[in-house]
Amino acid sequence: MNDFLEQCRQAVGAPHVITEPADMAGYLTDWRRRFTGRAQAVIRPSTTEEVAAIVRLCNEFRVPVVPQGGNTGLVLGSVPDESGQAIVLSLNRMNRIRAVDTINNTMTVEAGAILQQVQVAAADAGRLFPLSLAAEGSCTIGGNLATNAGGTAVLRYGNTRELCLGLEVVTAQGEIWNGLRGLRKDNTGYDLRDLYIGAEGTLGVITAAVMKLFPQPKVRLTAFAAMQSADDALQLLSLAQGKCGATLTGFELMSDFCLALVAKHFPQLKSPFPDRYPQYVLLELSDSESEEHANAMLEAVITAALEQEVIQDAVVASSIAQSKGLWNLREHIPLAQAEEGKNIKHDISVPISRIGDYIRMTDQRLQESFPGCRMVTFGHLGDGNLHYNVSAPENAADEDFIKRQPEVNKVVHDSVHEFTGSISAEHGLGALKRDEICRYKSDIEMGLMRALKQALDPKNIMNPGKVI
Amino acid sequence: MNDFLEQCRQAVGAPHVITEPADMAGYLTDWRRRFTGRAQAVIRPSTTEEVAAIVRLCNEFRVPVVPQGGNTGLVLGSVPDESGQAIVLSLNRMNRIRAVDTINNTMTVEAGAILQQVQVAAADAGRLFPLSLAAEGSCTIGGNLATNAGGTAVLRYGNTRELCLGLEVVTAQGEIWNGLRGLRKDNTGYDLRDLYIGAEGTLGVITAAVMKLFPQPKVRLTAFAAMQSADDALQLLSLAQGKCGATLTGFELMSDFCLALVAKHFPQLKSPFPDRYPQYVLLELSDSESEEHANAMLEAVITAALEQEVIQDAVVASSIAQSKGLWNLREHIPLAQAEEGKNIKHDISVPISRIGDYIRMTDQRLQESFPGCRMVTFGHLGDGNLHYNVSAPENAADEDFIKRQPEVNKVVHDSVHEFTGSISAEHGLGALKRDEICRYKSDIEMGLMRALKQALDPKNIMNPGKVI
Repeated sequence: MNDFLEQCRQAVGAPHVITEPADMAGYLTDWRRRFTGRAQAVIRPSTTEEVAAIVRLCNEFRVPVVPQGGNTGLVLGSVPDESGQAIVLSLNRMNRIRAVDTINNTMTVEAGAILQQVQVAAADAGRLFPLSLAAEGSCTIGGNLATNAGGTAVLRYGNTRELCLGLEVVTAQGEIWNGLRGLRKDNTGYDLRDLYIGAEGTLGVITAAVMKLFPQPKVRLTAFAAMQSADDALQLLSLAQGKCGATLTGFELMSDFCLALVAKHFPQLKSPFPDRYPQYVLLELSDSESEEHANAMLEAVITAALEQEVIQDAVVASSIAQSKGLWNLREHIPLAQAEEGKNIKHDISVPISRIGDYIRMTDQRLQESFPGCRMVTFGHLGDGNLHYNVSAPENAADEDFIKRQPEVNKVVHDSVHEFTGSISAEHGLGALKRDEICRYKSDIEMGLMRALKQALDPKNIMNPGKVI
Repeated sequence: MNDFLEQCRQAVGAPHVITEPADMAGYLTDWRRRFTGRAQAVIRPSTTEEVAAIVRLCNEFRVPVVPQGGNTGLVLGSVPDESGQAIVLSLNRMNRIRAVDTINNTMTVEAGAILQQVQVAAADAGRLFPLSLAAEGSCTIGGNLATNAGGTAVLRYGNTRELCLGLEVVTAQGEIWNGLRGLRKDNTGYDLRDLYIGAEGTLGVITAAVMKLFPQPKVRLTAFAAMQSADDALQLLSLAQGKCGATLTGFELMSDFCLALVAKHFPQLKSPFPDRYPQYVLLELSDSESEEHANAMLEAVITAALEQEVIQDAVVASSIAQSKGLWNLREHIPLAQAEEGKNIKHDISVPISRIGDYIRMTDQRLQESFPGCRMVTFGHLGDGNLHYNVSAPENAADEDFIKRQPEVNKVVHDSVHEFTGSISAEHGLGALKRDEICRYKSDIEMGLMRALKQALDPKNIMNPGKVI
């Protein structure tokens, strides 16, 4: 008889302590299906008190806890290691919207709520919850907070951290910290909230949060522009921000090679331009006034950019269908890339002003070491965040190229470091980049991080082997 | 011979280790002149390395360090206690603007730079640095960061925390953490930045920061509206945010009694309305388009609010002078209040939706305990932050009333707590509210804060007696 699991069953009810391998399987393999870990059990509490009871037992029995939301992470942060010692603490039964306050512009949600469910609840109340990313139909708000998720609206609304006002957390000792404050201003001590956000479950378990809401924009308008270089795209960004202020909510860069891949694998998705150009940008405005107003604003940006020869061509979507078509070009890049074969992905950021130089320099370094490799470069230019992906040369075997991933990573990440950038802009460190980060962070920073981990989780039971 | 001070002299140069009482005096008394502490010396390093050298010596000799910027704080956070053991570490020689990047929209500034100097440097580069507060001519960016300062532009741009991308910090051990990243996205470990921000110098010394810049708005437009209640003001806020989005940058509430005090003590400052109303709001738009556009937007808000009877009267400033006049009404409230006599100040926040109820309930409780006391209530309604100040009854002696400050504080702060608010929205805890906060924060939260303090400053040399 396993005393630990028996007490867990008493705490949450036997049906919610899963130990059958077939039933556990979905919780043990990561989203990209690259790794499968092992666990003693998957435990699914339904209240904060139950989470606390389970963590207290883990603390007592020194059982590692792997908190898990939608398990859509990309850096092996939400699956256990191969030891079989850990439990997976699934938050997916804690999925209530506890409160919506349309005057305070906040909602209180439990960690296991699916992002899309949160977006819909906000919309039902006539408000916008702006966090939006590819996995929104599966990922949870708790996972978004634990990884400080980014997405497509960061330019205007910030990362998940900026969208959160307060947290409820179960500490590594199984105590409940109620920090569910819906305040815009509160200077009463250390910023515990932002310490738990982005800690990937290694300091405690986020069980609920107060998130910010915004007025819904009246109209969204999309445009697509063609230009000679990433530097010109940066000039367009400055110009658009100057004329549109916070109305500019999206600014996505993609290279000609990206669009060529989309056209090759999805022939129905065509570039809106008769000619080809080295780079393209998708712009999105979210306007609180009217379609006419948004249109006039966007036209003014494009006219000025054409006059100044910052761009060579542009279209403004004249219908929702056309706007969807332009977004489709951007959203099909990862799919087209997958059709083309395996590649080596990077989620990097650099200061926005250095993006042009970064791409030039790193492309060149890669060509020197891996002649003929093909660059699939696109991303959230407005945030300095690129998906800087590298495909095998045209006639090379994917498998041979993928074997050289550590070398490719090193060239790309060394270059990021030289440009004072980040080797994980959106995705976190998880188990995947935990060692890699030690190459780039100073001993002092690693030492500070270790001191915090030691202070809040001295027994190292919270998601061990991740982040630090 | 004091070995410690001698080594400090070697580290920063003898002229920058001040021990003469007359020369130290300005560093030892707080901004409101309520408290004077003592110190062994005031030390003024000019580089990060010098700061690190001094803190290493303090660590070795166990000398308390009180970091100080402009010394404009309101909660006794930047002056030493009466023991005379500490040094004041003045950052005011570290005042360089290290870099401005108009494409990345960032500037790198040293902690001792005066806020106004930072605003001007941004404007000279054609950009906006939006942090703005009453002490901006004296306070430093390091102090703003250490206290997570608020001010008048929080509604649109956030507190100082939201304006910062990266920090350089000297740790309590005298090591230099270079976290001067200018990245919009970086998910590579624990959020050290936000832990040092708002810690009031109790975890380390902020020596430099990368701050965000914004496009300069083309036009600022101000309006003034009159209404029956704070609840109506909230409705106006929702209406204005819905129609103006991020263009709405200011939303300040003030009661009729506030305006009456201004009129009494500054007769040249007149309400723009022929009649009197219970409450008034000053609205500010910052528009990236044109004066016509801003005007039309503001007129649309006001027309709708009048039609819906949310407000009873309104004026839109038609000139910069008129706009200045409206702001003058708001800005003279603290001055008029001081002319009227001493009062008991509170810097509180509650969820925006509960402000009306908070004011009603707390006013009533105060009247029960202190009959006839007069409420000077005004503040940043858009942030849920009120300066909720209490003056003596008309015919009572100020001194007698001020003696009852602890009782008044207790009524106000107990009420804040009941409304899940904050007893220090903008100003921090310092030494002034350090004990008070223990009444309201849970033991678990206090325990987490103590664990962090212990982890990063185990010898308790960083600004001891403040915050925790």
